[in-house]
Amino acid sequence: MKKAVVLLSGGLDSAVTLYTAKKQGYDCRCLSFDYGQRHRRELRAAKSIACFAGCALQAVKISLPWKGSALLDSKIKVPESRLTGYAAAKKIPSTYVPARNIIFLSFALSYAEATGAEAIFIGAHCQDYSGYPDCRPDFFRAFRKMALRGTKAGVEKKKIEIKAPLLNKSKVQIIKSGRQLGVPFALTWSCYRGGIKPCGACDSCFYRARGFAQAGIKDPAEKVM
Amino acid sequence: MKKAVVLLSGGLDSAVTLYTAKKQGYDCRCLSFDYGQRHRRELRAAKSIACFAGCALQAVKISLPWKGSALLDSKIKVPESRLTGYAAAKKIPSTYVPARNIIFLSFALSYAEATGAEAIFIGAHCQDYSGYPDCRPDFFRAFRKMALRGTKAGVEKKKIEIKAPLLNKSKVQIIKSGRQLGVPFALTWSCYRGGIKPCGACDSCFYRARGFAQAGIKDPAEKVM
Repeated sequence: MKKAVVLLSGGLDSAVTLYTAKKQGYDCRCLSFDYGQRHRRELRAAKSIACFAGCALQAVKISLPWKGSALLDSKIKVPESRLTGYAAAKKIPSTYVPARNIIFLSFALSYAEATGAEAIFIGAHCQDYSGYPDCRPDFFRAFRKMALRGTKAGVEKKKIEIKAPLLNKSKVQIIKSGRQLGVPFALTWSCYRGGIKPCGACDSCFYRARGFAQAGIKDPAEKVM
Repeated sequence: MKKAVVLLSGGLDSAVTLYTAKKQGYDCRCLSFDYGQRHRRELRAAKSIACFAGCALQAVKISLPWKGSALLDSKIKVPESRLTGYAAAKKIPSTYVPARNIIFLSFALSYAEATGAEAIFIGAHCQDYSGYPDCRPDFFRAFRKMALRGTKAGVEKKKIEIKAPLLNKSKVQIIKSGRQLGVPFALTWSCYRGGIKPCGACDSCFYRARGFAQAGIKDPAEKVM
């Protein structure tokens, strides 16, 4: 059975990505990161989702002491999507963490290489890449090329694909696809602020709520959060 | 003053790289990693070298629980260079750590981006890249391209160079250059085995000893180690 490493943050997108990878026939190992994010409680969500899906989870703790992001630095305000409108202006939001996906994919690459996995799944999608540079298709292509040059697996012509199956999907499509795949939405956590309940105002909450509303599905997480 | 992030392992090569970066006029911030390496004592060396050079050091602790290398897994033997002769056979040695330099450079990239540094220095050189895929010139080129695609700095056309000033130098040339630059060789640590004294038999000890012998310089670290 072909193996894959799946980056699992605990959010809705990465959960759908995990179930997509499983549907494609991969034996999945999940990877999540405690990187000092304010919404660290997403890690509990990742654990529950991996457990529910019957997959192993490696939780790696890293530190980014230089911060440089609203997700790491409590002095920087988490923006409210509807007020800042950065997406329309194609500005990179303050929730961007310097080189975060590059770091995450590098660890996934190490894990994949050490365990003979032939694919890495990441839940990036078009709503993200309008804002985040490390969610764009040409970034993933460049990462793959670099990975081929810089690893033993690459030198030995072993395949390690970087797969972003949600890349061209909207939040509505992701939610609809997740429902078909049986994703446990109730276990996912999206809010950037990481309080006891979702704030309902940050980008992540906003896009989630709008996605569920447009899909005509009630967000089951609302009940349990 | 232009800023740089310098990957400082505590070994001879990274120490010479730091002094080269300083000589080139960079304000240097060093970055070292505790990644579970058996020669963790190199971290003490990194601290001493950064202190001696008057530079700040960020020490980042990461875990690679999947191991996959003789440097991480005590069950895998550290090869003895003169016996295995992998370099001549162009085989990748068991001391290769899956995606290690990719991970290190990713953190350096994050640090550089968060602090506005315009260069990352790494002490890779030709003796390494005969064996390690993540020490080859085409890997560094691919990493740079990927970094431009995947960071805010890249999108904003800010420069972050990946500099490997020792890339085409032999160990003898590195040692001679280090002496001219005033590198505190006595503070550096090279042995992969990380015991109380250098083992004298691993690749790293072997190349170091041969380099000093060929340069006609006595290794000052021998006195203090």
